[in-house]
Amino acid sequence: MADPRFFQRAGPFTLGELASRSGALVADGADPSRLLTDVAAVDVAGPEQITFLDNRKYVDAFRQTRAGACLVDPKLAYLAPAGVNLLLASDPYRAYALVAQAFYPVPVPQARVAEGCVVDPTAVLGTGVQIDPGAVIGARAELGDFCRIGANAVIGPGVVLGSGCIIGAGATLSHCLVGNNVNIYPGARIGQDGFGFAMGPGGHLKVPQLGRVIIEDEVEIGANTTIDRGAGPDTVIGAGSKIDNLVQIGHNVRIGRGCVIVAQAGISGSTRLDDFVAVGGQVGVTGHLHIGMGARLGAQSGVMRDVPAGMTVGGSPATSMTEWLRQNAILAKLARKGGSSKE
Amino acid sequence: MADPRFFQRAGPFTLGELASRSGALVADGADPSRLLTDVAAVDVAGPEQITFLDNRKYVDAFRQTRAGACLVDPKLAYLAPAGVNLLLASDPYRAYALVAQAFYPVPVPQARVAEGCVVDPTAVLGTGVQIDPGAVIGARAELGDFCRIGANAVIGPGVVLGSGCIIGAGATLSHCLVGNNVNIYPGARIGQDGFGFAMGPGGHLKVPQLGRVIIEDEVEIGANTTIDRGAGPDTVIGAGSKIDNLVQIGHNVRIGRGCVIVAQAGISGSTRLDDFVAVGGQVGVTGHLHIGMGARLGAQSGVMRDVPAGMTVGGSPATSMTEWLRQNAILAKLARKGGSSKE
Amino acid sequence: MADPRFFQRAGPFTLGELASRSGALVADGADPSRLLTDVAAVDVAGPEQITFLDNRKYVDAFRQTRAGACLVDPKLAYLAPAGVNLLLASDPYRAYALVAQAFYPVPVPQARVAEGCVVDPTAVLGTGVQIDPGAVIGARAELGDFCRIGANAVIGPGVVLGSGCIIGAGATLSHCLVGNNVNIYPGARIGQDGFGFAMGPGGHLKVPQLGRVIIEDEVEIGANTTIDRGAGPDTVIGAGSKIDNLVQIGHNVRIGRGCVIVAQAGISGSTRLDDFVAVGGQVGVTGHLHIGMGARLGAQSGVMRDVPAGMTVGGSPATSMTEWLRQNAILAKLARKGGSSKE
Repeated sequence: MADPRFFQRAGPFTLGELASRSGALVADGADPSRLLTDVAAVDVAGPEQITFLDNRKYVDAFRQTRAGACLVDPKLAYLAPAGVNLLLASDPYRAYALVAQAFYPVPVPQARVAEGCVVDPTAVLGTGVQIDPGAVIGARAELGDFCRIGANAVIGPGVVLGSGCIIGAGATLSHCLVGNNVNIYPGARIGQDGFGFAMGPGGHLKVPQLGRVIIEDEVEIGANTTIDRGAGPDTVIGAGSKIDNLVQIGHNVRIGRGCVIVAQAGISGSTRLDDFVAVGGQVGVTGHLHIGMGARLGAQSGVMRDVPAGMTVGGSPATSMTEWLRQNAILAKLARKGGSSKE
Repeated sequence: MADPRFFQRAGPFTLGELASRSGALVADGADPSRLLTDVAAVDVAGPEQITFLDNRKYVDAFRQTRAGACLVDPKLAYLAPAGVNLLLASDPYRAYALVAQAFYPVPVPQARVAEGCVVDPTAVLGTGVQIDPGAVIGARAELGDFCRIGANAVIGPGVVLGSGCIIGAGATLSHCLVGNNVNIYPGARIGQDGFGFAMGPGGHLKVPQLGRVIIEDEVEIGANTTIDRGAGPDTVIGAGSKIDNLVQIGHNVRIGRGCVIVAQAGISGSTRLDDFVAVGGQVGVTGHLHIGMGARLGAQSGVMRDVPAGMTVGGSPATSMTEWLRQNAILAKLARKGGSSKE
Repeated sequence: MADPRFFQRAGPFTLGELASRSGALVADGADPSRLLTDVAAVDVAGPEQITFLDNRKYVDAFRQTRAGACLVDPKLAYLAPAGVNLLLASDPYRAYALVAQAFYPVPVPQARVAEGCVVDPTAVLGTGVQIDPGAVIGARAELGDFCRIGANAVIGPGVVLGSGCIIGAGATLSHCLVGNNVNIYPGARIGQDGFGFAMGPGGHLKVPQLGRVIIEDEVEIGANTTIDRGAGPDTVIGAGSKIDNLVQIGHNVRIGRGCVIVAQAGISGSTRLDDFVAVGGQVGVTGHLHIGMGARLGAQSGVMRDVPAGMTVGGSPATSMTEWLRQNAILAKLARKGGSSKE
């Protein structure tokens, strides 16, 4: 079970309640009134716990599980040992996410402004807002209902947060408008000047950065990630997009809805990602490009051209994944031959 | 126009004033007394706004612009629609930077130590210094005139800042001496120990890091960038150099004047960059190298050898850009053939 | 000598004392009662200073050194100029580390809770704990003896630190248990949610992250590095491992003992590193891999498969270093030929 020093567990829940919360179906023979107290991995779960089977690698563990209940794809249900109460779900991992959220809900903010905060008198705070110690809320900032501002975070002048936002400890926001249920992790930097200079031998002249960062609903932004504000147009992060740690988003970038950007990737200025683009870890995308809907950029790839919708790319400079794999194979083959045939 | 929640506009200015501030020439037929209230992009600017044409991609928009005035290269002036008051400049983007700075000047610091700050009684503060809420100024630190220290920033003991420095929210400085008009962005980490260990199977022994970070005038250091102090010699960032977000600068590195280092690049310990070196995004440079004046390191390149002055390199391991492009082309050609000719 | 604004020097020490602290041997003819006041580099050291010779590149400087004393490999001792008091050590750099630690010891924490801190009344503080201004210590946190918490750092609820830990300015810790003598640099982010989502076209559902970060004794974690807590199992950093700046460690990662991870590397979720693995700068390791004991991952490599113990790899996708070098050589040769033989 999760360490009670850090996690507060809700429940117990009946199998029936968990089915209803997760959209799963109580299997024939399962007892909807069965009480469950926690989630656990399939190999360690006991009779009072619910687990899930998502990956065929764990089928052997599933055959022997002692779990009281298990979320499983209907096609694999026949492998369950006797006595496990099954919940059937076509996407068991997604159903598990909902079950785990039931047992470990995000703590409700405590409506309070803690000791050691500095809240400007012109800031507007919604209902139930929690401001942790040392946070600073600037002039005319607006915090929606039930926002939670972490310790030593800084919300700059004029920044607007929708309702239900969580701002991590030590994060700093300026020049941005944030939607509802946005989760910004510790140390993220939102809204600072973009890297805009008129270069020249007489010195690099700063070009005023006059745009904002717009963050739509349900976005997550990882720890120590940096998102620069626009130079004139805005930098935009579309609804439901998830950005991991240490990512760099340059000025004027537009990220569509439902994109996923893995750690340490960087998107250069004025590039546009359509909806549901997946960007792997440590990817670099140069500026002023257009990445089409649903494209996938393989880890460490260096994208220097537009990528059409749906395409998967790899390598640096990036090319189609098929082409990149072929290049790797050819090069490996040539190296094995020692290139001798060419001498 | 820029969002008034975040930006305060100055002006209006006459065309003549803007010409004089930007070093541009009022074109024949233009009205030097024409009043302008703001900057705007060429496709959206209206009669009270001034725009610029820098990139030939925007020539079509320029032909139809409704802007009241436009900064333009004299060679393209003939394309202007009637009624636009032209300012002629050989580098219109640089002139635009100066015009935009006129309309949107960096706010003058408010001379005050805000609530919730902790300023050591032995710290020395110049005239007109602004210290935002929650900032911490250590013993014997010296802040020059008109410095502005962001909320929850930390200036360590003994740190010296010249005049006109801007330290972003949540940035931390220690063991460093900083020149005039230096801009350090939120979350930057300056002056911590370098990564110096005497490695060994019995444990990695910490080697005391006894140098400093020296930051010369007019430097910018991006959000969440890290610059370690020297191990014995100093780490030095030369005057006018601009460093983007999430960059790593190792101990003893010496960056010359006017260098530009794009986001997520890393320069390993004891490497030396001469003046006006350009380092692309996600570049890695190994330790103890010498990168000559004006060299250009292409995005994501991995530089493992010295680079002569003026050379452009690409790839990992990096080679001359020409060579790298040739390698990419060869590999692509071989992959297209499927390597069949070699079977 | 080190800038006295930032460093406090101890000593002087006799040659004999320094020999004893560093495990070196006083050479024949050297005077064990000779007093030394500081460390210095071999080319600048004077008669009152002790230096070291570790790298054959500095043999010429060594032949002419004016240092009062020098740590040197016995095999090179014969090159010393007359008058230098030699200390013989098989690993002179390691011996130097101990000598430098004698002159520049880590400052003993001052037992005090500074102004502007917020320490929850339920937190437990050991003997001699120093808490700098603006730090926030959460409910039920436990700080071992002689811990030092930097300005504006945040120690979350329930976090446990062993004795002698140093937490840098602006760092934030949550959901973690930390051993003794751990050094966490400014801006590091420890214990936030991992990047765990059940992806889907209807939105990416957050999967509760129910594990912790376990940091064993003598670990160092660099500035602005991010370490996510486990999803269910814990994220673990083994004893004596040293992690540089801007590194990303994903959820459930297990780092063995004595590992070294250079700046801007990223280790994806659930990957396991055995003891004494060396990870170069900007390396990326994908998830669910196993990297064997003593393996070495070359800078910028992209590791997509398990790496056996002791192996050195390079390239992206990574292969054995030998193979990678051969591939680079082949490609360079083909490019020189212009591929013409294949036409």
